[in-house]
Amino acid sequence: MTDAIQSSNGPFAFRVTGSTPGDEDARRARTGVFSTPHGDVTTPAFMPVGTRGSIKGVLPRDVGEVGSTMILANTLHLHLRPGEETVAKLGGLHRFMNWDGPILTDSGGYQVFSMADISTLDDDGVTFKSIIDGDLIRITPERAIEIQRALGPDVFMAFDHCPADPRDRGQVQTATDRTHRWLDRCAARFAADGGVEGTNQALFGIVQGGAFEDLRRASVEAVAAHGFVGNAIGGVSVGEDRESMRVAVEAAAPALPADRPRYLMGVGTPRDFFDAIAAGVDLFDCVTPTRHGRTHQVWTSRGRINLRNAGWKDCDAPLDEVFRAPHVSDVPIGVLRHLCLSNEMLGATYLSLHNLHLFHELMRMIREAIPAGKLAALREEWVPRLERRLTPDEFRG
Amino acid sequence: MTDAIQSSNGPFAFRVTGSTPGDEDARRARTGVFSTPHGDVTTPAFMPVGTRGSIKGVLPRDVGEVGSTMILANTLHLHLRPGEETVAKLGGLHRFMNWDGPILTDSGGYQVFSMADISTLDDDGVTFKSIIDGDLIRITPERAIEIQRALGPDVFMAFDHCPADPRDRGQVQTATDRTHRWLDRCAARFAADGGVEGTNQALFGIVQGGAFEDLRRASVEAVAAHGFVGNAIGGVSVGEDRESMRVAVEAAAPALPADRPRYLMGVGTPRDFFDAIAAGVDLFDCVTPTRHGRTHQVWTSRGRINLRNAGWKDCDAPLDEVFRAPHVSDVPIGVLRHLCLSNEMLGATYLSLHNLHLFHELMRMIREAIPAGKLAALREEWVPRLERRLTPDEFRG
Repeated sequence: MTDAIQSSNGPFAFRVTGSTPGDEDARRARTGVFSTPHGDVTTPAFMPVGTRGSIKGVLPRDVGEVGSTMILANTLHLHLRPGEETVAKLGGLHRFMNWDGPILTDSGGYQVFSMADISTLDDDGVTFKSIIDGDLIRITPERAIEIQRALGPDVFMAFDHCPADPRDRGQVQTATDRTHRWLDRCAARFAADGGVEGTNQALFGIVQGGAFEDLRRASVEAVAAHGFVGNAIGGVSVGEDRESMRVAVEAAAPALPADRPRYLMGVGTPRDFFDAIAAGVDLFDCVTPTRHGRTHQVWTSRGRINLRNAGWKDCDAPLDEVFRAPHVSDVPIGVLRHLCLSNEMLGATYLSLHNLHLFHELMRMIREAIPAGKLAALREEWVPRLERRLTPDEFRG
Repeated sequence: MTDAIQSSNGPFAFRVTGSTPGDEDARRARTGVFSTPHGDVTTPAFMPVGTRGSIKGVLPRDVGEVGSTMILANTLHLHLRPGEETVAKLGGLHRFMNWDGPILTDSGGYQVFSMADISTLDDDGVTFKSIIDGDLIRITPERAIEIQRALGPDVFMAFDHCPADPRDRGQVQTATDRTHRWLDRCAARFAADGGVEGTNQALFGIVQGGAFEDLRRASVEAVAAHGFVGNAIGGVSVGEDRESMRVAVEAAAPALPADRPRYLMGVGTPRDFFDAIAAGVDLFDCVTPTRHGRTHQVWTSRGRINLRNAGWKDCDAPLDEVFRAPHVSDVPIGVLRHLCLSNEMLGATYLSLHNLHLFHELMRMIREAIPAGKLAALREEWVPRLERRLTPDEFRG
């Protein structure tokens, strides 16, 4: 038996509850419990994204019913509309999202650098045009902390510079250095506000470093030195190749403090989960389950299907005999297809519920597999099943 | 005590359970139970509309949770897409709509005459262009019965000719005469298929006659002569003035057989309900609760509000202290407004749930008030409250 791997900081705590038996390398995958002021999250866990304050098309009661414990909201979107002052006046993010469980906000860094029309970028911060009304918006590290403080999540993220191309070393070096300087300012502002004890909120740092092992390891050192409640790996899932993500995650994740949650931002798909969990990642978020739900694509235990395919028209089988999401599992595929083709909101709702349920069930299976030493076997069984394309003919065959 | 007012026909039955105590005229308002193969409906009742097979934006479980017992679907829309053969292959309308309770389909008459680009109209039927693909579609009375039979609701409607202007006597006379001839053909086709006993389904006739008392009464006679399980009043809520609807309902409703349910098609608003119920109507349907929900308008116990008004931005009060819909009653108005302005599906879902809940609660209050002799008092109290426009300033004041 090793000593307990755990940390606690005010109302936050993390405890590793299990890991792969056997060799040192395989022990990187672990299960845990992340405790927050709004409840516990058993990890590895997937967090659905409520960009503008709602998980699109799904009532909060159903978000919980399909297995979500911790959810996300996007700082930048809420800053632009309705504004953090309004969210605060309306009782803060938990009341705003009608969600009593843990909530995490991103810092806006990813959105600013990936989507915004940036006017100026300097060491002090970023100025960009609002997508709502064209107003110029200024975000600095301190401002990002202020905005998130006003929104009121359990966990919020440092403001980072996410480079567009993780394989451009010059660009990545500049962005990573800036991220570290901004991290110092975020941490200082967070401490000045009272830190974890004074605010009941936790700040997570973000590791950058692109697809470069040495830059990732250096960034881990810079971030870990702050002793944050948890740490994140950013700058992935920005459209890079799979190998770049693998390098980034495998360099950063095992090097991050083992007694704190490790969060891989903006990821991903079942295959990504297995890869990252094997490297010691605990938390994930992604819009895929709901976004794909709205574009009529679902993961199933027999493969990914696109309901626009006319071959599903008269299919009276349920979507999935294994992953039976509440409310969806009795609806024939042909009905789901009809609702989607007719642009009925209920189609997107059903498919989002199904995808979310499947992601959460997969995480549950992974949490069971890790201490049983069966993570690799689970991966071998499920990744090919989940990632393949399933046609109506194959489905019937 | 009067004799029990009731009828039964195969698996269908209707029983008047209460009426306004006192003078003969006031006794027209009644409460009842309409029994169908998929359960009982206590009347007066409001039926939400699932045009294309879903109550827009609301999971079937929640449709029931807010108080719906019987729901509608539109024959013409489902005929055009996905087609009644597909609905039948997928298990019929109950499985298609994921709804175990009673379902009613309209015949398509209203849609054909109000929305379609009609190519030819003759005594045999109607030919029009599909709004989906421009294909020519032919509907005859027999075809309308066949389509609805294939869809598989509990109750379906005769194919009628709904005149565009209920005050144009010539037009109304022609449409009403044609409706009666078509009704004979619908009834013959229905009987040939086995009637109520043979099919476990009920056909309702539809009274036309526009805003003309004598034409309405004549139409009632023609329809009632068939001895249908229930009867409907059509040709209202087509954009006519309130007085035309009043004349139509007051001429037709009390004259229809008292021992069978009376259904006022496509109506309406709280004021309409009180007027029609006082004239003896038992069933209503309308898209208003969900359509208004999608356009950010709600009824509340203090008046109608439009969430687009900027005055609601920071309002942290719940929508309604009296009509507390599940899932919605704890959400601040400012949040609902934000979701609506951000075009989040959840905004439409919340408002639709609220509006549906309010309509069903109003019907529940009406069902209690009728036997207590308090229908007029309830109307006097609630119609002005529900129908007035409520501004943010008045709400706070």
